[in-house]
Parts: sequence; structure tokens; C-alpha cells
Amino acid sequence: MNALDRLTALFSRLPGIGKKTAGRLVYHILEGDPVYARTLADELSGLHGAIRRCSACGSFTETDPCPVCADPGRDRSIICVVERAQDVPVIEESREFRGLFHVLGGLIAPLEGIGPGNLAIGRLLERLRGGEVRELILALNPTVEGDTTALYLQKLVEDMKDAERGPAQVEVTRLASGLPVGGDLEYADRLTLSRSFRGRVKV
Amino acid sequence: MNALDRLTALFSRLPGIGKKTAGRLVYHILEGDPVYARTLADELSGLHGAIRRCSACGSFTETDPCPVCADPGRDRSIICVVERAQDVPVIEESREFRGLFHVLGGLIAPLEGIGPGNLAIGRLLERLRGGEVRELILALNPTVEGDTTALYLQKLVEDMKDAERGPAQVEVTRLASGLPVGGDLEYADRLTLSRSFRGRVKV
Repeated sequence: MNALDRLTALFSRLPGIGKKTAGRLVYHILEGDPVYARTLADELSGLHGAIRRCSACGSFTETDPCPVCADPGRDRSIICVVERAQDVPVIEESREFRGLFHVLGGLIAPLEGIGPGNLAIGRLLERLRGGEVRELILALNPTVEGDTTALYLQKLVEDMKDAERGPAQVEVTRLASGLPVGGDLEYADRLTLSRSFRGRVKV
Repeated sequence: MNALDRLTALFSRLPGIGKKTAGRLVYHILEGDPVYARTLADELSGLHGAIRRCSACGSFTETDPCPVCADPGRDRSIICVVERAQDVPVIEESREFRGLFHVLGGLIAPLEGIGPGNLAIGRLLERLRGGEVRELILALNPTVEGDTTALYLQKLVEDMKDAERGPAQVEVTRLASGLPVGGDLEYADRLTLSRSFRGRVKV
């Protein structure tokens, strides 16, 4: 295997990149400026050393705690729970949310052998016991796994309230599910449509 | 800009990779084995040093001449002319062709300012003057640029014959154009259909 084939094989291990696309990328890099290839190489080799997980929320960061957790301007009474660390920048870009985050690191999926014990749920409960949090926004995908995890977390918070170990009032909410903005009613699936009916709001 | 954003920006400069896809790749690499990232980095930084162009045919290779040009088992009387170096492995994989290659490095495209002088045509004529070549297979894309380049090369070879400077008999052929195997007549465009009629063969 020569250098071209080795690099093509490595690229094709990335998600969504097949052998053909990988080859195209390699030829593009080869025909381009060697400085680009070297810069890309440097960033890749430094990536795991530069990025760690925030010890508070679990998102990817260069500093610990992460810029969001360290920002005194953020609302510490609301925690937005996400599945993966890459969901954090997506929500940050919408500029809709000014609270803190919590990365679960997955969703409950019994068929894949992922139970609550595999997720950062214990650490989430600890944060709730601090007493500062008033709302938990579950920004989980509207899928079976997302629904299961949302129900599980909601139940846990209820139990905490009953046992009076936690704060008296932590409201658990979930992102609205419905028609995507700019979407077409005609192309909406049955479940999305049914959810958008149940969640209808006053104009 | 942190390490994540820098790497995302670099990836999104690759063809067909937008900002979203780039981000997904970076997170995938970050969550994966650091050994993979380092191996990818090593291969990238070594790429331009390891791969050069074959001085005979112009394809990418680790050795000069390339394995195809150096192979005594290849038929030196047939040269397959391709647009780009990456077309060579595509044709090699089909195992249909046992001759040599010649990489033009582009196609004649006056609107983009690419004329015959920008292509490796002079070197191709030199190879023909050697007298060993009997057939020139033009494996160029069936596009306006491919057609223009094919006509230009055919004319050049004719002129060579007239001037009696070259070999008496160099046949210039072109890859058949028509319906793709497994394709559907219904979805064929008018031009492809018309070419497949003109190039029809006996069953």
C-alpha cells in the first residue's frame, strides 16, 4: 500500500466518507498547497491534547471549567441537558439559551446495551442537589431513545422531590416537537404532525 | 478560535465538505482513538514528500517511473490518455486496459482560460514520435471540454501523419459513450440516448 492508499483508507474510516469520497479528498490535498496538508496534520495531532471535557458540564473545551460554565453572566438556575458534547455549540449558535449545559454522553437504549448507568446522570443529580437549579430543559432528540431518557430523568427528579433531598421546585421541560420552520406540511411524517397538533400554541 | 474550530475550518475547505459535516468529522475524531488522529496526521504531513509525478506518464507515484510504466508486461503500443492523475487508478481497477497511460493535467476549456499550452500535450507527441505507439485511447469525459480536447488531439495526430514526422499508423479512439450499465432508459438524458443510438453495436 502506498501513501495515497494508506491516507485514502484512513479517510474512509470517517463517518459518511466512502472509498470514492476519500480518494477525492486525498487527490485534492495532494494537488493543493503542501502547507494546507501540514497545517491539517498539525491540528489533528494536537487535537486530543488541546481538548478535554469540562469537569462541570462534560462539554468539550480547551479550559476547565469551559467558557460557558465559567461565564458569570450565565443563568445558573437553568440547565439544558443534551445527549452529546457536539450538541452544545449547535444550541449556543441559536443564541436562544443563556443557562448552563449538561452532557449526558448518550441516551438510554436497552437494545444497544446502554442503560442509565452508562450516562452522566449521577453527576446531573449532584448538580440539582446544589439547590440553585429551577429548570431542567431536556434538549434530547425526539426519538424513542430520547423519549425514554426524558421520561427516566423526569421520574428521577420527581423521586428527588418526594424524598425531599433535593430542591422543592425543579421544573423539567422538553424542547417543543413539531413542524420544522420552512418545512412543508405535505412532507411531515404522521408522528411529527400528531405532535405538532398536541403541542399547538395560540397565535 | 480554539482547536476544535480551527480543525473544523480546515476540514470544511475540502471539496464537498460543508461546515456541518466538518464539525461532525472533528467530533468523531475527538471521541475516537487518539492513535487514529496521530496516524492520520502522520500520513497527511508525509503525503507530498512521498508522492511525486511519474516523469513518463504524469500519474501520481512513489517511484519514478511509476509501477505501470516500469512494468515490462504492459503493452507499450497503446496509450490511454486521461484528464487527471486520479483517473488512472479508476481505469486500473476495471482491469480492462493493459497498456500505458498519459495524464493531460486538464481539458481544453477556453472559458476558464485553459488552452492546449496548459496541458501535457507536447510530452504526449514526443512519446508518439518514439514510433512504438499504435493506438491512442482518449479516456476523456463525454463533456464539451472532453469533446474539444479529443478533436484537438485527433487533429494533431493527423497533422503528424501528414508531415511524416511521426509513426505512419497511430489510431485515435475514444471510450464508448452511452447508457450506463444498470441504468434506466427512462432516466437517460437526450444526448446520452442519441450517442448510444449512434454508437449502437451488433448483439
